[in-house]
Amino acid sequence: MTLAAELAPSFSQRLSAAAAETDRLLDRLLASAPCQNEILRPQRLLDAVRYASLGGGKRIRPFLVVEAAALFEAPRERALMAGAALECVHCYSLVHDDLPAMDDDDLRRGQPSVHKAFDEATAILVGDSLLTFAFDVVSRPETHPDAAVRVELVSALARAAGFGGMAGGQMLDLAAEGRFDPRREPLDLAAITTLQQMKTGALLRFACVAGAILARARPEEREALARYGEAIGRAFQIADDLLDVEGDAATVGKSTGKDAAAGKATFVGVLGAEGARAWLKNLVAEAEAALAGFGSRAAMLAAIARFIAERRA
Amino acid sequence: MTLAAELAPSFSQRLSAAAAETDRLLDRLLASAPCQNEILRPQRLLDAVRYASLGGGKRIRPFLVVEAAALFEAPRERALMAGAALECVHCYSLVHDDLPAMDDDDLRRGQPSVHKAFDEATAILVGDSLLTFAFDVVSRPETHPDAAVRVELVSALARAAGFGGMAGGQMLDLAAEGRFDPRREPLDLAAITTLQQMKTGALLRFACVAGAILARARPEEREALARYGEAIGRAFQIADDLLDVEGDAATVGKSTGKDAAAGKATFVGVLGAEGARAWLKNLVAEAEAALAGFGSRAAMLAAIARFIAERRA
Repeated sequence: MTLAAELAPSFSQRLSAAAAETDRLLDRLLASAPCQNEILRPQRLLDAVRYASLGGGKRIRPFLVVEAAALFEAPRERALMAGAALECVHCYSLVHDDLPAMDDDDLRRGQPSVHKAFDEATAILVGDSLLTFAFDVVSRPETHPDAAVRVELVSALARAAGFGGMAGGQMLDLAAEGRFDPRREPLDLAAITTLQQMKTGALLRFACVAGAILARARPEEREALARYGEAIGRAFQIADDLLDVEGDAATVGKSTGKDAAAGKATFVGVLGAEGARAWLKNLVAEAEAALAGFGSRAAMLAAIARFIAERRA
Repeated sequence: MTLAAELAPSFSQRLSAAAAETDRLLDRLLASAPCQNEILRPQRLLDAVRYASLGGGKRIRPFLVVEAAALFEAPRERALMAGAALECVHCYSLVHDDLPAMDDDDLRRGQPSVHKAFDEATAILVGDSLLTFAFDVVSRPETHPDAAVRVELVSALARAAGFGGMAGGQMLDLAAEGRFDPRREPLDLAAITTLQQMKTGALLRFACVAGAILARARPEEREALARYGEAIGRAFQIADDLLDVEGDAATVGKSTGKDAAAGKATFVGVLGAEGARAWLKNLVAEAEAALAGFGSRAAMLAAIARFIAERRA
């Protein structure tokens, strides 16, 4: 039996457990009662925020925070708080990306996207609210008793999500479609790598680094987690591109074949499906190599790298 | 000569100086070079972010942070950092509010709004980027050497801007227009007060409280600044409503008469122009009363309250 097969039951159990805990935490954080310094939480907005963030998704980002923190034996409740905040940022980005002026997607996780289930103005405010709330959650003492740790998380999350990270990556993606210049040059592999590193990679990298920040890990340990996070970030996007050309909408839970139709810059488009699969394998090896210094303690993180590369939805 | 008239030249000089310093700081913070943990700042997005945030507006919010901090002799550079972050949040809210799905406004400060000067997708990402960047700026050591102070600012800013504050207020405003239920009841004075306290008041209150947080002021001093901030927040909105019915587009720098046409819930609509002006006077008195404990040191903050009530643009 391979290590991956041995870990499999434990892996899926741990993933489900972290997802369920993240959901329960978000459910509690997104209750109707306002917190100190809030005035009230308008019902329609809160309903839409909850629709956008509860009960869907594999919660792979919070799982990464939890397992990266576990590597250093940092308390799980703190990792769940940081993971919930990160999931708010991820969910905001999905809501805004689905808007008609952006990717114009009516389906998300097999359900109507927020602007379809509610309306466009509500969807804009849902994204704004979830993004803002992420920083509220990170700043709370429950995330870490040491304010210096919390503020380091705020800074890292803002850099990962902002114009130098995720939001900037979304901009590069729209540009690559020819949105602003129909005669643009097609992106080469280096440009696609940068784009995806920003659009998808930055938040996944943050998830791994957040575990190390929460544990006040040594610089070389943080570096190792950052390298691991960068490798799985790239692997995640290649797997996503492969799903877009090979998956079907029912399994994936969103429209497929759209990226190719929109002329999006994808790894599969440049490398072909075979080339992309080969690179995916290399990235898993790279992720595992980054974890080498942690020995068998990092078996679960290694399993996550393989899961990301092999996922079918 | 009244106190207001005596202060007038000094007041407008100080307001212009804080605005110029805020602009220089934002210009520097929004440079092309990426910061640590950023990958790159895409040119079109950065251009649009700069268009949305530089060279416009009176910068009344940063001015409030600066003058509230000055009351406690907190360093001006730190107040300017917090003020710049707050201005990023304010500017993001303008960009998103102007979107076609929101207030659909083509003019802002006499210039094409961001989705007109660029496009809708860019405007959505500009708002997202400015909001995220605000938390980046607040989390920097230049804002305050003590991480506990920075994280307190993060929390207060998130609560003021989120679904329990500004974003929630925008939602209530859309609901009051009848966007979601054409047969809704018109808002009474209490409901309009709550709406405006969230939509406009929360950020102005934060500006004042931020000065006290930066100075690690005593709880009763923070409370006094919060009361002052709440009073000028209400005054600001009433003055805005009066401008919407009495001002002209050229002076105000945005379309006027739109709120009434859109059936928006305004103080002037409920109280009439005379009633609104009377209440405005009371609010200035309330703001001054909140400052009483600070004596003549608070003369500049009192002048700001009068400026807000009497502004013509």
